[in-house]
Amino acid sequence: MPHQTPIEFGVPHGSVSPRFERRTVVEPALVAALDAACGASTDPADLAEHGRDWWPLALHWALAGQVPNLPAVVVRPRTTAQVAQVAAACSAARVPLTVSGGRSGVSGGAVPVHGGVVLDTTELSGVDAVDEVSGLVTVRAGTFGPDLEDHLAPHGLRVGHYPQSFAISTVGGWVAARGAGQFSTRYGKIDDMVAGLEVVLADGRVLHVGGAPAAADGPDLASLFIGSEGTLGIVTSVTLRAHPVPDHEARAAWRFASFADGIAASRDAVRHGATPAVLRLYDAAETARSHGGDGHDCILLVLDEGDEGLVGATMDLVARSATSRGAAPGDGARVAAWLEHRNDTSALQALSRRGYVVDTMEVAAPWSRLPDVYGAVVGALRNVPGCIAASAHLSHSYLDGACLYFSFAAKDAGPVEAVYRNLWDAGQRAALAAGANLAHHHGVGLNRARFMDEALGGGLDVLRSLKASLDPHGILNPGKLGLGREVWP
Amino acid sequence: MPHQTPIEFGVPHGSVSPRFERRTVVEPALVAALDAACGASTDPADLAEHGRDWWPLALHWALAGQVPNLPAVVVRPRTTAQVAQVAAACSAARVPLTVSGGRSGVSGGAVPVHGGVVLDTTELSGVDAVDEVSGLVTVRAGTFGPDLEDHLAPHGLRVGHYPQSFAISTVGGWVAARGAGQFSTRYGKIDDMVAGLEVVLADGRVLHVGGAPAAADGPDLASLFIGSEGTLGIVTSVTLRAHPVPDHEARAAWRFASFADGIAASRDAVRHGATPAVLRLYDAAETARSHGGDGHDCILLVLDEGDEGLVGATMDLVARSATSRGAAPGDGARVAAWLEHRNDTSALQALSRRGYVVDTMEVAAPWSRLPDVYGAVVGALRNVPGCIAASAHLSHSYLDGACLYFSFAAKDAGPVEAVYRNLWDAGQRAALAAGANLAHHHGVGLNRARFMDEALGGGLDVLRSLKASLDPHGILNPGKLGLGREVWP
Repeated sequence: MPHQTPIEFGVPHGSVSPRFERRTVVEPALVAALDAACGASTDPADLAEHGRDWWPLALHWALAGQVPNLPAVVVRPRTTAQVAQVAAACSAARVPLTVSGGRSGVSGGAVPVHGGVVLDTTELSGVDAVDEVSGLVTVRAGTFGPDLEDHLAPHGLRVGHYPQSFAISTVGGWVAARGAGQFSTRYGKIDDMVAGLEVVLADGRVLHVGGAPAAADGPDLASLFIGSEGTLGIVTSVTLRAHPVPDHEARAAWRFASFADGIAASRDAVRHGATPAVLRLYDAAETARSHGGDGHDCILLVLDEGDEGLVGATMDLVARSATSRGAAPGDGARVAAWLEHRNDTSALQALSRRGYVVDTMEVAAPWSRLPDVYGAVVGALRNVPGCIAASAHLSHSYLDGACLYFSFAAKDAGPVEAVYRNLWDAGQRAALAAGANLAHHHGVGLNRARFMDEALGGGLDVLRSLKASLDPHGILNPGKLGLGREVWP
Repeated sequence: MPHQTPIEFGVPHGSVSPRFERRTVVEPALVAALDAACGASTDPADLAEHGRDWWPLALHWALAGQVPNLPAVVVRPRTTAQVAQVAAACSAARVPLTVSGGRSGVSGGAVPVHGGVVLDTTELSGVDAVDEVSGLVTVRAGTFGPDLEDHLAPHGLRVGHYPQSFAISTVGGWVAARGAGQFSTRYGKIDDMVAGLEVVLADGRVLHVGGAPAAADGPDLASLFIGSEGTLGIVTSVTLRAHPVPDHEARAAWRFASFADGIAASRDAVRHGATPAVLRLYDAAETARSHGGDGHDCILLVLDEGDEGLVGATMDLVARSATSRGAAPGDGARVAAWLEHRNDTSALQALSRRGYVVDTMEVAAPWSRLPDVYGAVVGALRNVPGCIAASAHLSHSYLDGACLYFSFAAKDAGPVEAVYRNLWDAGQRAALAAGANLAHHHGVGLNRARFMDEALGGGLDVLRSLKASLDPHGILNPGKLGLGREVWP
């Protein structure tokens, strides 16, 4: 069961109107078929709930009693067989089928922009198998993060995927959106955690892919569905790699004279083999705002856990890397403060209520590009009329680069939609031009669909070919990933 | 340039005949077009060389003056543009186009089983860019392993991909066959090393995919081509992740009373975070044959390199894991002996010359399945008439499982082809039934094509859909990966 209703803006259910005009006629015969398969809801409150996710622009619309769009029907299958029946029925009727889990996505990926049917996975939940020897857990797609980890704890296991949405997002959503958790520098992105998938194709075929630690049996077919955001298939079950619950933890904080120095130190540590679970570097603005900075210094928060010897060697390597770049020890208690508040997004919501246009944008780039990406994006955002703040932190590190997570806000510069679009156009295009990619873990959804062509080039043609071959009638989550029929902007 | 001719059996060039009857008519107009693009060879010696790879069954045929098949033309493009011209010309003419690099593959993947054109990548070689800050190297597909590492050394970098074929295989081959190196427990498989790819599609379109350390911009399109064995596109350039050249190394050996104890210790170490570059466990037969065993004990060879603190903590964790499973210290000099002889395959070749049917089979499985997979495969192989030896070692470890690498030999049991097929049918099916996958790093090629359906299930249908969408005329490496038109067995 969901641990938190995704969006609570106090908007009366049933009174909302759709922001987009695109609707699909759903014949009564299809509703009856879906109802026979697993029950079908046409309750206005249900439709309204499933017309939105955590896309920040939609939060503004919700305050005005609008959702991006309304589905005609919501279904909540409890088994893979029921999902297959739903897909086959929608495919035969040529009706859009959009899958939603916790609806915590921030890019509009779960919004049924063309109406039709929403398949809510949250009753397709629970853990089906735990292999303690191999550390593998097979979990249904609609299972929420805390339920997964609660189930694993008695087995001495932990997956360790902690996105900010942990409590309100599902395993299927993590996979579909190719997410990352806050401890990813040790445990990897969800891409690295998936050992196997069960997927229902658009025509109702059920597929099992993966299942071994590594293979050379043709291309990795699981990769086809990880990050496909419900456009190529419906993830119904996931086998994830889990770790022993760690028995040792260490924390540290370091203060740098500049963001560039902190980037260099993070790079040095990671490139020499350090993989601390948490390695978060805040720029001067964010350090001052949230981590006790003086407006000039930049804080690096470090946390690692696991085998005591490996953790000790990791923290030593980070310390050497930091001091060699001129860092001074910071207050280790800052790590605890971050841990406590890390999933609290109430400040952003409060700003939206007060009329600010607020959002975040995360991109990844090679180490050599990161200083330029940081400067270019912050500069571009600040040049947008109405922008009052733009800052960033380095949030997830890899051998060859890292993710920069930008936050920005604007006010009193015209219609919300235009300001929002201008900020994204400026920030995203500056990032791409400076050598970053389109997205690190928030996905594409609706918000970033317009950038897919310039970000992927010929790759988007390949993606369109895959889409046509696996979903020939285009019923799965239409309007997303730049695969045609976009409605925004 | 190649460092070693792939196959030297003393067979006079030009006198060989094709084993398979499948041939494709290549019109003079196509030969002229290919010649205009980059030069086209129809020299009999060239055709004979490109009719075979290191597939062990083909070694037997080579001794009889046969190759699996002969291409009609060999081309050696030097630029991506020339590769695109070749692909477009073959596509327009509907003529098979098989890519070959070092032809060190052991599954027949580079054999032009339907004749047509072979595209030899070995003149598409060299390093185009090195990013020292990020540790990224962009290298052309036809570059051999030693040339890549020699180029990187002055930059203080090393990719660390060391397959047994290191000296005679190319970067493009590593990617196309989804290979693994001997140091993969620290550095990962080639899948983990690829940051980006340049690919030429069947119709000549040039594609760039990847390029960032991590992404959420739709499915990972690079994964589509890694392991596709030349059936979905032609890899022309690869951007690989490289590591700092390590300044510290440690070695150890441990002796276990049983293979199962050694598996358990390897599992314990890796599951608690140890990633030693080398972690190789030999069963009693292989320990006695090559590593000083008494016929009962099983040796574990360990080598790690990198940051001194991390290496020390890793070796400590392995030592604790080994002793907790009853291991006694072994002779560390055994690691040096293995390093020295690790790429020497002359013994296998000598056995083939003497009429033995010899091969190896590698599969991966979760830790919980490995003891059963070991017992089932060794038992099944030994039950094949004529089998005189079957043994294994654990060669590559992961958080959730490992690769078992089987070696087997038979003699005096009938025609080579029948014995060879019987051994593979028995070993591969026993592995699949016990919970292993089809292949860990030797790929599918021709030899394993017949198992793809039972190994992948509905996944093979998806692969066929991808093939049809990306290569609608089926010109790329036909007869491989179970994608139709097989000729073996």
